[in-house]
Amino acid sequence: MKLSLVGEEMSAMSGVRSILKDIAEHAARQSLINLSAGNPLVLPEVEHLWRKHLSELMEDAAFGEIIGRYGSSQGYEPFIETVVEMINRNYNWGITAKNVLVTAGSQSLYFMAVNAFTGMDKDGRPRRLVLPLCPDYTGYQGVSFWKKTVVSFKPVVDVLGEHRFKHRLDLDRLTIDGMTGAVLFSRPCNPSGNVMTEREVLELIHRSRSRDVPVIIDSAYAPPFPNLSFIEMRPIWGDNVIHCLSLSKAGLPGERIGVAIAHERYIRILESFQANMNIHPSRLGQAIAARAIRSGELEAVAAKVIRPFYEKKFRVLEAALDQCMPDVPWYLHVGEGSIFAWVWFDRLPIRDLELYQLLKKEGLIVVPGFSFFQGLREAWDHTNQCIRISLTASDEEIEQGVRILAKVLREIYR
Amino acid sequence: MKLSLVGEEMSAMSGVRSILKDIAEHAARQSLINLSAGNPLVLPEVEHLWRKHLSELMEDAAFGEIIGRYGSSQGYEPFIETVVEMINRNYNWGITAKNVLVTAGSQSLYFMAVNAFTGMDKDGRPRRLVLPLCPDYTGYQGVSFWKKTVVSFKPVVDVLGEHRFKHRLDLDRLTIDGMTGAVLFSRPCNPSGNVMTEREVLELIHRSRSRDVPVIIDSAYAPPFPNLSFIEMRPIWGDNVIHCLSLSKAGLPGERIGVAIAHERYIRILESFQANMNIHPSRLGQAIAARAIRSGELEAVAAKVIRPFYEKKFRVLEAALDQCMPDVPWYLHVGEGSIFAWVWFDRLPIRDLELYQLLKKEGLIVVPGFSFFQGLREAWDHTNQCIRISLTASDEEIEQGVRILAKVLREIYR
Repeated sequence: MKLSLVGEEMSAMSGVRSILKDIAEHAARQSLINLSAGNPLVLPEVEHLWRKHLSELMEDAAFGEIIGRYGSSQGYEPFIETVVEMINRNYNWGITAKNVLVTAGSQSLYFMAVNAFTGMDKDGRPRRLVLPLCPDYTGYQGVSFWKKTVVSFKPVVDVLGEHRFKHRLDLDRLTIDGMTGAVLFSRPCNPSGNVMTEREVLELIHRSRSRDVPVIIDSAYAPPFPNLSFIEMRPIWGDNVIHCLSLSKAGLPGERIGVAIAHERYIRILESFQANMNIHPSRLGQAIAARAIRSGELEAVAAKVIRPFYEKKFRVLEAALDQCMPDVPWYLHVGEGSIFAWVWFDRLPIRDLELYQLLKKEGLIVVPGFSFFQGLREAWDHTNQCIRISLTASDEEIEQGVRILAKVLREIYR
Repeated sequence: MKLSLVGEEMSAMSGVRSILKDIAEHAARQSLINLSAGNPLVLPEVEHLWRKHLSELMEDAAFGEIIGRYGSSQGYEPFIETVVEMINRNYNWGITAKNVLVTAGSQSLYFMAVNAFTGMDKDGRPRRLVLPLCPDYTGYQGVSFWKKTVVSFKPVVDVLGEHRFKHRLDLDRLTIDGMTGAVLFSRPCNPSGNVMTEREVLELIHRSRSRDVPVIIDSAYAPPFPNLSFIEMRPIWGDNVIHCLSLSKAGLPGERIGVAIAHERYIRILESFQANMNIHPSRLGQAIAARAIRSGELEAVAAKVIRPFYEKKFRVLEAALDQCMPDVPWYLHVGEGSIFAWVWFDRLPIRDLELYQLLKKEGLIVVPGFSFFQGLREAWDHTNQCIRISLTASDEEIEQGVRILAKVLREIYR
C-alpha cells in the first residue's frame, strides 16, 4: 500500500504505542497490578454531577438543536461564554469569546497547533517544536507530521533530600530562535508531576515573544479544574500564550473536550483548521460542561473530590516507597500535580525497558520512561533510568505494586 | 505570524468558505429566504428517537464508563458490533469488527484518508486525489494539505427532456494511474443529487484496484440511513473500497459520528492516524446510535420520516420550477437523493457568483456552483452556470424562493 509522507508518519507505531499495545495485551491475559494507566477513575461524585446536568439538559428546549444541528466551528456558544466568565472571574485575564476555541479534546488541539506552527514551511525549512523540559507527554511528538522537527531539552536535576528530586528548566541550554515554530509543555507535567515555576514560565514566554513564537501550555491537570496541582499554582497568561484546558481529568474523557484560550490571531488560525478538519467538536459534552461550570459545581468537585483523591494516592505511594524500597539510589519526583508519579533509579544497571519486562514477569505493570524523552538530541543515561507510575489504582494495589518494585530492584542492584 | 505549509493550507479561506461567511453575515442581518443551508432540519420523530435512547442509556450501568473513561481509538465497541450486524444483515458483506473504524464525524474521516493516501510522498512526488465526477462536495479539497494534488473530471451532461439533466461519469477522460493516491466521491452526491450508477462505481473500483488505489465512497445520504436516495440504490463493496457512513443526516450532526467500513489494512492506517490525532471520537453519541440502530428504529425512521420528508421537498421545488420559470434554458438535475437540488442555466449571460449577488439583493440566498468544481483542470463554461438549492426550508419558502429566481433569470436572459 502506498502512503503519503503524512500517512507514513501518522500510522507509524511509535515507541510508547508499542508499549501500550504490549500492556493492553498482557493486562487482558493475566491478573496483573496495572500501574500504567492514564485513564482516570470514575469517581461517584463526578459521575453524579454529569448525570444530573445531562438530565436537566434533556428537559431543555435547546436539546434538539444541540444534537440535531451542525454548530459553529468555534464551539457551542453557551459553553464559550461560560469559559470566558470563569477565566475572567478566576484570573482576571479580560478575555472575550474571540479568545476561545473548543476542540474535540486537547490532543486534537495539539495536533492542529503543532502542525500549523511547526514542521516544514512553504520554503522547505523545518520549523521546530520546542519541548523546553523533558520528560514530557509523548503525544506531543505523536501529533507531529515532521517528527524530526521536535526538539527537547535536558532539565537540571535538583536532588532534594535522600530520595526526592525536582526538574528545573535549563535556561542555558534552551534555544528559541528564528526557526522555532512553537514551544509546548504540560504544567502540571505528565509524566513527572513537576510544576514549572512562574519564573521559568515567564522566561519562556519572554524569550518566545521576542521571536513571535506561541507558547502552548497544556493545562490538562491545572486549576480551576481538574485542579490536580498539589502545590499552589497560578495559570499564566500572555499575548503569545495558547492556554489549553481539558475536561478529561474532570470526568469527561469519553466526550473529548479541549479548549484553547489565546490571542484572537491564534484562535482564527486554529478555528479555520478545525472547520476544514472536522467542522466542529461534538456538542452534548460541551452543553453539560457549560452547565456544570456555570453553577460552580465543577470547580467545587475538582477542589473537594478530584484533587484530594489523587493527592492521597500520591501520599500512599510515597509512604510505600519510603517504607519498602531497599537501599538503592532511588528518587521520587516531588509530587506537585497530575495523576502520575515519576521515579528515577540512578546508576540503574539495566535499561528501563528491561526493568519493565522484569516487573511485568513479577506481576506489576508500569510505563518505562524512555519514550517521554522524545526529541532529546544528546545522550543521557537518565533517559533509561526512570518509570512512570499511575495513581489510578486502589491503595492496596499501589502498596502491593511498590513491594514488587522493591523486590525486583533489590535484585537488580545486588 | 509564521506558519508551516500545513498551517497556511488549513487556515486559508477557500472560495466556498468566503461565500458561507458572506451568507452567514447577510442571513443574520436581514430577513432573507435562505436556500443555502447544509444544516438538516430537526424532525420531531427523529429528535424523539435520540431523546428516548439517551434517557435509557442514562439508566444503564455503562453510562459512567462511557463518559468517564477514555475509550478505544477504533470506536465504542458496542457501536462497532452494531454496525457490523447491520451491514451484514442488509448487504451480506461478511465484515467483522476489524473492518470498522468510528471517527469524529465523516469530515474527520476524509481528512485522515485524503492526507494519508494523497499529497506529497516521502520522495516529494505528488500523489493525486481523484474526484472522478465534478461537481462534488467542496470539503474534499478543504481537508487536503496539498490542494494542488486534487484533480477532478468533467462529467458527460445527459439532457433528459426539456428541463432535466443527469451527470454521467466520463470514462474516456478519467485517469487513474501510478500517481493516483485515492479516488473519492459522494453517492448520493452533494451538491447535485446525482446517484452514480452501479456500472460506473464498479468500473471505478476495477480501475483503482489494478493500481492498488482505495476508492472512498461518501455515503452520508445513502441507505440504510439516512436513506436519502429517491431511487433504488445499493451500496457497493470491494476490497479496495472505504465505505463511509455518517449519522449527521440521520439527526445527529451535533454529535459528529462517522464510520469507515473497509479492508483491515486501511482501517489499521486510519486508526493509528486517529489515535495520534485525537485519541478517539466522543462516545455518548456512539452509545445512543448503537441503541437506535440495534432496535431497528433508526432504519425505520429514515425510511418512514427522513426520506419522505426530503423527497417531498424536492417535488415541491420541482413543481415550483416547472410552474414559475420563464422560457430560458434551465435544467434541474434529476433528484436521485441528498438534501439539495442542483440547477444549471445553459448560456447564462453572467457568472454564477454575480447571479448569487443579484438573488441576494432580491432576498433569496442560494449557493453559487463554482466551488463544487474544485480540481477541474480544463476550462468549462458550465462551472459558472449552476446553483445549489437546499431542501431544508419550508414549502412556502421554497415556492417563494423559486418565484424570486424566476423573476431574476427572466431579466438576466432578456
